[in-house]
Amino acid sequence: MLQRAVCDACGIIQYENPKIVVGSIPVMGDRILICKRAIEPRYGLWTLPAGFMENGETAAEGAVREALEEARARIEIDDLYTVFSVPHINQVHMMFRARLLNEDFGAGTESLEVKLVRAEEIPWSQLAFTVVRRTLEHYLEDRERGVFVPRFGDLRPPARPA
Amino acid sequence: MLQRAVCDACGIIQYENPKIVVGSIPVMGDRILICKRAIEPRYGLWTLPAGFMENGETAAEGAVREALEEARARIEIDDLYTVFSVPHINQVHMMFRARLLNEDFGAGTESLEVKLVRAEEIPWSQLAFTVVRRTLEHYLEDRERGVFVPRFGDLRPPARPA
Repeated sequence: MLQRAVCDACGIIQYENPKIVVGSIPVMGDRILICKRAIEPRYGLWTLPAGFMENGETAAEGAVREALEEARARIEIDDLYTVFSVPHINQVHMMFRARLLNEDFGAGTESLEVKLVRAEEIPWSQLAFTVVRRTLEHYLEDRERGVFVPRFGDLRPPARPA
Repeated sequence: MLQRAVCDACGIIQYENPKIVVGSIPVMGDRILICKRAIEPRYGLWTLPAGFMENGETAAEGAVREALEEARARIEIDDLYTVFSVPHINQVHMMFRARLLNEDFGAGTESLEVKLVRAEEIPWSQLAFTVVRRTLEHYLEDRERGVFVPRFGDLRPPARPA
């Protein structure tokens, strides 16, 4: 399946390919940095710092940039951790494990609030995206057993009742 | 850095984001399937089956499609293996370990020749891309020690002499 956008005026075909979302799990000690969204979709719900990868940067650089933009947070990337294809919205999400370098963070323009939470404080029912929930679940499970294993998979929309 | 294409006639801004290349290391026993390119760039050099991911598919589905298109090969994906950002050409390459399901393969329209090679038969000096060389090096190293470890990294252009 190849979708194309054609400019009505000039006929130029713009080939459309899936977009990459890059983000991180910024960790300090046993706490994880999360952001409350100030934008749609999912305004007011919690997420990990992430956004569209841009031209000219690496995936890791994009994750560092997003942490700075959304949470004014300085992070250092450890390793690629989860990669999820989300084919119904033409996206691939790449989430990195990262270390939060200091506690000098705060809400960027796309966040209402940014905070460090322990595992038991994660607002599971108020998470913005399945990718975020799955990534946090994997992270806590791996942290418990002391081995971080990168995971890749697909996310499909929930089946609708007939 | 955000690059944008603007249609001269209508002024529509097309946001440009990095493209994803998906591919595989199709393996049968101790042999690996490689393809001789019938297209530019790198016409006549050897590669692993790979190409641009398309809308509506997962990364793994894209890798399966590319193996079929370039090598008429049926594969099953095992796991995501290497992820390389190539920022100077705005690409992210995702290569999967895969099993070649049968020997009924052959050159697709973008290949001159397709063949199964043992480690000692890999044409190292005739490989088309650094991503392919690095992925094959990691694969053979991991196969030797019996543990496959996913890797992510960046590929930059070689420094030019002053």
